[in-house]
Amino acid sequence: MADDKKLTPRAEDFSAWYNEVVLRAELADYSPVRGCMVIRPDGYGIWERMQRALDDMFKATGHRNAYFPLFIPESFLHKEAQHVEGFAPETAVVTHGGGKALEEPLVVRPTSETIIYAMFAKWVQSYRDLPLLINQWANVVRWEMRTRLFLRTLEFLWQEGHTAHATHDEAEEEARRMLGVYRDFMEGWMAMPVVTGRKTESEKFAGALRTYSCEAMMQDNKALQAGTSHNLGQNFARAFDLTFQTESGGTEYAWNTSWGVSTRLIGGLVMTHGDDKGLRIPPLLAPTEVVIVPIWRSDEERARVFEAAERIARSLGDWERREPNRLRVRLDLRETLKPGAKYYEWEMRGVPVRVELGPRDLEKNQAVLVRRDTGAKQPASLDTIGEDVEALLESIQDAMLTEARARREAHSVRGAITYDRFREIMDGEGAFVYAGWCGNAACEAAIKEETKATIRVLPDEEFRSAEPPTHCLKCNQPATSEALWAKAY
Amino acid sequence: MADDKKLTPRAEDFSAWYNEVVLRAELADYSPVRGCMVIRPDGYGIWERMQRALDDMFKATGHRNAYFPLFIPESFLHKEAQHVEGFAPETAVVTHGGGKALEEPLVVRPTSETIIYAMFAKWVQSYRDLPLLINQWANVVRWEMRTRLFLRTLEFLWQEGHTAHATHDEAEEEARRMLGVYRDFMEGWMAMPVVTGRKTESEKFAGALRTYSCEAMMQDNKALQAGTSHNLGQNFARAFDLTFQTESGGTEYAWNTSWGVSTRLIGGLVMTHGDDKGLRIPPLLAPTEVVIVPIWRSDEERARVFEAAERIARSLGDWERREPNRLRVRLDLRETLKPGAKYYEWEMRGVPVRVELGPRDLEKNQAVLVRRDTGAKQPASLDTIGEDVEALLESIQDAMLTEARARREAHSVRGAITYDRFREIMDGEGAFVYAGWCGNAACEAAIKEETKATIRVLPDEEFRSAEPPTHCLKCNQPATSEALWAKAY
Repeated sequence: MADDKKLTPRAEDFSAWYNEVVLRAELADYSPVRGCMVIRPDGYGIWERMQRALDDMFKATGHRNAYFPLFIPESFLHKEAQHVEGFAPETAVVTHGGGKALEEPLVVRPTSETIIYAMFAKWVQSYRDLPLLINQWANVVRWEMRTRLFLRTLEFLWQEGHTAHATHDEAEEEARRMLGVYRDFMEGWMAMPVVTGRKTESEKFAGALRTYSCEAMMQDNKALQAGTSHNLGQNFARAFDLTFQTESGGTEYAWNTSWGVSTRLIGGLVMTHGDDKGLRIPPLLAPTEVVIVPIWRSDEERARVFEAAERIARSLGDWERREPNRLRVRLDLRETLKPGAKYYEWEMRGVPVRVELGPRDLEKNQAVLVRRDTGAKQPASLDTIGEDVEALLESIQDAMLTEARARREAHSVRGAITYDRFREIMDGEGAFVYAGWCGNAACEAAIKEETKATIRVLPDEEFRSAEPPTHCLKCNQPATSEALWAKAY
Repeated sequence: MADDKKLTPRAEDFSAWYNEVVLRAELADYSPVRGCMVIRPDGYGIWERMQRALDDMFKATGHRNAYFPLFIPESFLHKEAQHVEGFAPETAVVTHGGGKALEEPLVVRPTSETIIYAMFAKWVQSYRDLPLLINQWANVVRWEMRTRLFLRTLEFLWQEGHTAHATHDEAEEEARRMLGVYRDFMEGWMAMPVVTGRKTESEKFAGALRTYSCEAMMQDNKALQAGTSHNLGQNFARAFDLTFQTESGGTEYAWNTSWGVSTRLIGGLVMTHGDDKGLRIPPLLAPTEVVIVPIWRSDEERARVFEAAERIARSLGDWERREPNRLRVRLDLRETLKPGAKYYEWEMRGVPVRVELGPRDLEKNQAVLVRRDTGAKQPASLDTIGEDVEALLESIQDAMLTEARARREAHSVRGAITYDRFREIMDGEGAFVYAGWCGNAACEAAIKEETKATIRVLPDEEFRSAEPPTHCLKCNQPATSEALWAKAY
């Protein structure tokens, strides 16, 4: 935090603003390894809270965690034709181990379908072994040429769910269920609204039958693919001979799903909520929910204010929130920094509530609560400060979702639109544009070529326009579906 | 669990017994990648509970989690002379990424001192930035030629703590503190007693000033190095230019520590507590603490017993123990298996308490509780079964530690001993032998060569003999310290 010059404003250069916030809020740092980053404690603290919330949701839906090898024999990737085409070009390859050249190179997992379904084939014999519902928390590597902190790094942390089912319909239900879990998490915990729907053939996961996605709008009006869920059909089951004996005694291939979210979500959180003062973290995910900043002039005042601040801190909770129902509170007793400098720092770090406490507040038996999201201040009696802070945190969590949703709707375009106008929008400030599509991959490709915008999803019913579009945005032929178009990360 | 033939008894072939237990209790499985294993949900469930307990202890001692890159530039390993000598021969090396040969090969981390202290050098400027107390949960790779499930695998999961301090004494205190945390965890949670102490020069970590270790005795009387903590001195600080401005304005190298435990602990748990019926898991780490097995003959009985079993299950807790202070309970309602087959399976899986419930029990308003550790049965009134089960679980946790400690003491040898007798012991059933050592590495090496026994630690004071040994076990010269000798994993 030595660097106290102002952030580049979002309006001036969103990309520069993003990097500055990530670095100065100490979420992450560049590492000496090209394309790999270091996740610092304040960033990792957000990830830990994301993990805990998601893990609870996965377990509540019947999944159990397991761990599969980092290395995958190169030949495994080649067993599913689309999969190898999608992933082989971006793998890191281990060719030497223990000082010797390997007979068969090992790929560092870019995703684990191949190794996991090879194991499932060993474990599943009969319909009684299904469904098999597994999740893995792991690191994966994809050899990206252009990287961005959190959004696109060579190595990233994620979870990947992998399941096997007896029927297509059960797999489809699972893929949709987990998309719903992701949406609940993104909206309920991250305060980041998403549009859900199906990916087109050209945007689906390499090896999937169908891919579903949660798409969030960032403050530069670009889309972030925040989480995907795939119905893999029987593609991997065929490739790895994952069969089961049916109830009637026959043998069939199992039906698989996979689904994942990653540390990319932290980038999404920054780009959804950050402002020109820095980070704003939704309370449920904030490593620190409340920071208490004492104000004093004389030594006598300092003694009184410190004593009161410590009492408040103890009454609210503690730094690691080791007891349930206690808040994660920090007390900033540094004597070398003025209050203003502390405000500046904690605003940069996105702590949802600041408690200011000076001698005059003490005389009135109160403290001042300051919301990070709006900057609004309110006094709180020291007799009820615990309840007041809790209520304020809840209100901030809700307000952040409402604000983000309003922002997205303000930058969504629906209704009849010419292709010229569409290009103008995409060349300008961008938007989520809901428009008709003829279903032809050629139109999709042409639009991408000409505007860099892609079909993010064919949106689920609740996101579709009241008046369905009638014609394709590009070729003007009759539309077969409504598509959500945007530029994306 | 298709395989229902008896386990190889421990006394017949301990090593075969171990592999069978790990596979049949479904803790882990072999993978198609040489030397890499799959940790299955029941094994990973133990690891998750270990992680949660350790992570809480790390945080309570002021540490925060972060994440550093999987890949380390090969040149980094070479910056600390002893470190490269120790680790370079057993690395996996990535030579290709994104389809191209890399300019500089990347090593898959065997441990992260080099990359972490390179980052610390960037973050630490002044004494005010110290101590810096970081932990990482990660996977690491060491190219082992002979592997064993959990005990020695190419890839394993672990945590590695890395800290920087202003003085030698603070680093030393930290290294000792974390050794104490490990011991508390191993004894308090794993019910696995350990001997703590310092490693000799020849056994210390490559690059450390001093290494401390927790050594546990397995049921074949071999030692398992269960966790180590290193005072790294200024070795890595010099290699990576990790300096800080002192309070008086000078510049000094920081002092580092590192410390780690891994999924190897799961192997230690199996070899400490397992018996000829399978696994025995200490209740605090058991993914399932209680299994309820209903017993019935007629359909009418089944209906009554199922209904009561479900009521008991709900009153005790739930499978994922989502609410605090509730037990992790499974209800085995399978109708295709007889009770005896279920007992056999849950004994194999090591569930600490089994609740048997039949029609005659119901008439007496009771169930029968069966301890996995001793096999002892006791009736419990359905009115107090919650408290009874809780008390039983606590008692099992204590009894398992007491039993393991007694076993270790029964196989520890102290007092004057000839080298011939020592060889006889090491050629025979093995033991922890406390004996004198002259401090000469030549004696240490000769004993290792002749008996395969090594100095596990120079034990801490509380583990030393009342009568200190006077002469070296090997050369008979005056002893400079007491050493704990054993064969080891």
